[in-house]
Amino acid sequence: MSAPVRIGVIGLGTVGQGVVRLLKNNAAEITRRVGRPVVVTDAATRTPGRARDCNLDGVQMWDDAGRLVREADVDIVVELIGGTGVARELTLAAIARGKPLVTANKALLAEAGNEIFAAAADADGVIGFEAAVAGGIPIIKAIREGLAGNVIDGIAGIINGTCNYILTQMALRGQSFTDALADAQRLGYAEADPTFDVEGVDAAHKLAILAALAFGMPLAFDDIAIEGITAVTPQDIEIAQVFGYRIKLLGIAKRGGDGVELRVHPTLIPDDTLLAKVDGVLNAVVVHGNAVGEVGFYGRGAGGDATASAVVADILDIARALSAEARHSVPALAFQPDALRPLPVISIRDAQSAFYLRLRVADEPGVLSQITAILAAHEISVEAILQREPRGGEDATIALITSVIAEHRFGDALEEMQKLPFVRSGAMRLRVEKFD
Amino acid sequence: MSAPVRIGVIGLGTVGQGVVRLLKNNAAEITRRVGRPVVVTDAATRTPGRARDCNLDGVQMWDDAGRLVREADVDIVVELIGGTGVARELTLAAIARGKPLVTANKALLAEAGNEIFAAAADADGVIGFEAAVAGGIPIIKAIREGLAGNVIDGIAGIINGTCNYILTQMALRGQSFTDALADAQRLGYAEADPTFDVEGVDAAHKLAILAALAFGMPLAFDDIAIEGITAVTPQDIEIAQVFGYRIKLLGIAKRGGDGVELRVHPTLIPDDTLLAKVDGVLNAVVVHGNAVGEVGFYGRGAGGDATASAVVADILDIARALSAEARHSVPALAFQPDALRPLPVISIRDAQSAFYLRLRVADEPGVLSQITAILAAHEISVEAILQREPRGGEDATIALITSVIAEHRFGDALEEMQKLPFVRSGAMRLRVEKFD
Ligand SMILES: NC(=O)c1ccc[n+]([C@@H]2O[C@H](COP(=O)([O-])OP(=O)(O)OC[C@H]3O[C@@H](n4cnc5c(N)ncnc54)[C@H](OP(=O)(O)O)[C@@H]3O)[C@@H](O)[C@H]2O)c1
Ligand SMILES: NC(=O)c1ccc[n+]([C@@H]2O[C@H](COP(=O)([O-])OP(=O)(O)OC[C@H]3O[C@@H](n4cnc5c(N)ncnc54)[C@H](OP(=O)(O)O)[C@@H]3O)[C@@H](O)[C@H]2O)c1
Repeated sequence: MSAPVRIGVIGLGTVGQGVVRLLKNNAAEITRRVGRPVVVTDAATRTPGRARDCNLDGVQMWDDAGRLVREADVDIVVELIGGTGVARELTLAAIARGKPLVTANKALLAEAGNEIFAAAADADGVIGFEAAVAGGIPIIKAIREGLAGNVIDGIAGIINGTCNYILTQMALRGQSFTDALADAQRLGYAEADPTFDVEGVDAAHKLAILAALAFGMPLAFDDIAIEGITAVTPQDIEIAQVFGYRIKLLGIAKRGGDGVELRVHPTLIPDDTLLAKVDGVLNAVVVHGNAVGEVGFYGRGAGGDATASAVVADILDIARALSAEARHSVPALAFQPDALRPLPVISIRDAQSAFYLRLRVADEPGVLSQITAILAAHEISVEAILQREPRGGEDATIALITSVIAEHRFGDALEEMQKLPFVRSGAMRLRVEKFD
Repeated sequence: MSAPVRIGVIGLGTVGQGVVRLLKNNAAEITRRVGRPVVVTDAATRTPGRARDCNLDGVQMWDDAGRLVREADVDIVVELIGGTGVARELTLAAIARGKPLVTANKALLAEAGNEIFAAAADADGVIGFEAAVAGGIPIIKAIREGLAGNVIDGIAGIINGTCNYILTQMALRGQSFTDALADAQRLGYAEADPTFDVEGVDAAHKLAILAALAFGMPLAFDDIAIEGITAVTPQDIEIAQVFGYRIKLLGIAKRGGDGVELRVHPTLIPDDTLLAKVDGVLNAVVVHGNAVGEVGFYGRGAGGDATASAVVADILDIARALSAEARHSVPALAFQPDALRPLPVISIRDAQSAFYLRLRVADEPGVLSQITAILAAHEISVEAILQREPRGGEDATIALITSVIAEHRFGDALEEMQKLPFVRSGAMRLRVEKFD
C-alpha cells in the first residue's frame, strides 16, 4: 500500500469534527477510491484539550494554527475556523508554503477571494472550496466541470438554509418571522446572532462565488444588491400563495445584455416549480446553460456531516491529483481499477418493499374479508385499501398497499388470492418505495 | 495561444451534431476555461456528404470510422454512433492507440463495460462517459467525485425520459399507455421501435453504470431485475393518486445487508417527494450518501444539445488534463486565472423583473381605480390583483403582481402611489421571478 495522504485540519467545530469522523468512518472505501489512505495526522484548535465528537487518536494536536500551517508534515491543509481574519492569514500562509488548501469559508472567499486566488495562481497553489456553497451539494464541481461546455446564462439558488427554514415555517404554519426565527435558533438552524443569515449576507457570499465560476469574472461581492427576509410577513406569504407563488430567499446571477445582474432578495416564484417545493433547511440551485437548459440540484446546505462530505470531496480530488498524472487522477469507475469488487446481487425475490396490488373481483359479499384474511395469514399488513363497485362491467376493483415485505412472501399470498373463485385473472402488482 | 486540442467525432446524428455546434458556439469561453482552443478537426459518418445541422467547415470528413480512429491526428476520440457492435471495436481500437475516448453509449458500457474498462486500465487509457446516464445532468461526476467522501447507500433515478413522458401523460391527461406512446413518438421522445425504452432496458443500462460508480463494483447489467411500463394502466395511476402516490419508472440500486439490490420497475412513490414532481421528459436522480444524506439532481436526460453538454464536459476534462499537471488541471474559478474578466454589474435599479406590491389603503371607493390608473400611466400592466376588506382595523389591503419592468420604473410608479392620500405608509414590494 502506498503512503497515506496526510491531512491537517484547522478548526474542530461542527464541520471539522465531521471531516475527522468521515475520513475515519469511510476510510476503507476512500482508500479504494484514491489508491492510498487519506488520514488526518494533525489538527489545530484554540482549545486542543477539549473533548470532541470524533476520534482523535494518533492525531497531533496544535494550539497554534499558524505553526501547523508552517511546520506540520501534511500534504493538504484544511481551514475550518471561519471568519476573515486569522483564516485569511492561514490561507495565504498555506499557499505561500505550497500546501494545497481546502476551505468551507464562504465569507473569506467572497471578501478576500480575489487576493487569495491571485496568490494561489502566482504560487501554483490549489484551493478547494466545494463546501463553501450549498453544503453537501456538489454545485461548485457541477458548474466548474460538469457544465463547463455551456455558456451559463443564469443561476438561481436557495443557498441559505436558515432563511429557507424560516420562510417555510411561515408558509406552512403561519408563523411570524420572529417566532420562526426563534424556532430556528432553538433547533440549531440559526446562530444566536442571525444577522448574516436573515439579512442575506451569507447568501450573497455564496452568490459571489457562484457568479465568478459561472461567468468567468472576479468575485464581486460588493456589487451584489442584497435584501434580507426580515420584512416578509405571513400576510405576504399567504397572498403570494393565493396568486400561485411561494416566497423564497434567492440568490440570482443572470447575464444581461450589458453585464450581469447579481442580487439576493426574497422572491415570489411560481409554486409549481421545483425550487418552490424545496422546503425547510434544504438548499437548491438551478443553473441555466445555453446547451443543457435548466439543471437543478438539491440537498443539505449545512450541518457537520453534509458539509464534511463536500470538504472531503475536495480533499480526495487533491489527494488523487497528488498521486497520479492528470489524465489518470480520476478513475473511470470512481474506484481504482484494482479495487473494484463484485458484490452479490440480491435476488429480486428477496428484495423488500411495500407493494401495490390491484385485483378485479366478482361483486359479491365476503370478498374483501377473504382477501384480507390471506394477507393476515401471511403477516402482511395493509396500509391503504380501496374497493370500487363495478363501473359498467360486472367486476369490482380492490386495490391496496401493503407493509414492507420480501417479494417472494408477497408472491405466496398473491398466489393464494388468485386461487379464490371470485378473483379474476390479471392482478396488477407494483412496488412502492418511500426512501425513508 | 497554445495549440488547439483536436477532437475526432464519430457519428453526426442527434448528439454528434450537438457536440459540433456546442464546441463552435461556445468556443470563446471554452478557450478561456481550458487555456487552449478545443476544435473538432475530424468527423466520421456513414454518409459524409449528407447535410448536417452544424457547421463542418474545415473538418476533415471520414467515411471509415475505423480509419479515423487508427489514423487521424486527433487528441481525443468521441464515439457517438451507438450500439454494441462497431462502437465496441472502435472503442477498443481507440484505447489500443492510446487515444482518450468520450462516449454517450450506455448500451455499450452496460454490456461490454467490464471488457472496455479493463482494456483501458491495461493501456493507461481514459474514458469519459458523462453523457451515458441522464443526458445533461452531471450525475457521473457528482457520484464519482462530488460525493466521493460518502459510502453511498442507494440511488434512485428517473433515468428514461421516454417512460417518464408516457407516465406523465397518463397521469395528467388520463391517456392510455398506447396513446401516450404514440404521442411520444410523434414528438420525437420515443423511437419507432420503443422496446428498449418502455421495457426498461435503457434504464437498466444506465443503472448498471450508476451502481458500478456508487458501489465500486464491476458492471452487472445481467443481474438487474427489469420490469417495463407497458402493463401500467391509467386506472393504476389514478388509484395510486388516491393513495397519495405517483407512478414512475425508477432505476434503484441499494446496498443491503448481504449485497446490493439492482432493479428497474414502475414504482409508486409518495407524491410529496421531489422525484414524484419530476414530469415529462426530464430525468432526475437521487443519491443517498452516509455523510451527505439525500442529494438530488434533475435536468434534461436527452436531446442533442443537453447530451452534447455532457459529452463536451468530458472532452474539456480530458483537454485540461492533457494541458496541465494534475493539481492544476481544473482552475479554481473554472476559467484560467488570466482569463477572468470583470463584467459590469447592472444596477439593481435597472434589473428587470415582475413585482409583487402590497399596500394598506383606506377603505374608500375609487382607491383601486386610482392605483391602477397610476400603473397604466407608467405602462405597467397588472397580472393579478386582490383587494381585501379591512380585517379588524380600518385599512383595506390591495396586493398585485405587475408585468416585467425595470425597478426604477416601478419605483417611480410606487412613489406616486405613496403620495395618494388614502395610501398608508409601509408598502411591501417584492420581486417575482419566473425563470422562463
Ligand atoms: N456549520 C455548517 O453547517 C457550515 C456549513 C457550510 C460552511 N461552513 C463554514 O465552515 C467553517 C467552520 O464552521 P463551523 O460551523 O464548523 O464553525 P465552529 O463550529 O464555530 O468551529 C470553529 C472551530 O475553529 C476553531 N478556531 C477558531 N479560531 C481559531 C484559531 N484562531 N485557531 C485555531 N482554531 C480556531 C474553534 O476552536 P475551539 O473549538 O477550540 O473553540 C472551533 O473548533 C466556517 O467558515 C463556516 O462558514 C459551516
Ligand atoms: N439522442 C439522445 O438524446 C441521446 C441521449 C443520451 C445518449 N445518447 C447516445 O448517444 C449515441 C448517439 O445517439 P444519437 O441519438 O446521436 O444517434 P443517431 O442520431 O442515430 O446518430 C448516429 C450517427 O452515427 C453514425 N454512424 C452509425 N454507424 C456508423 C458507422 N459504422 N460508422 C460511422 N458512422 C456511423 C450515423 O451516420 P449517418 O448519419 O451517416 O447515418 C449517425 O450520424 C448513442 O449511443 C445513444 O445511446 C443519445
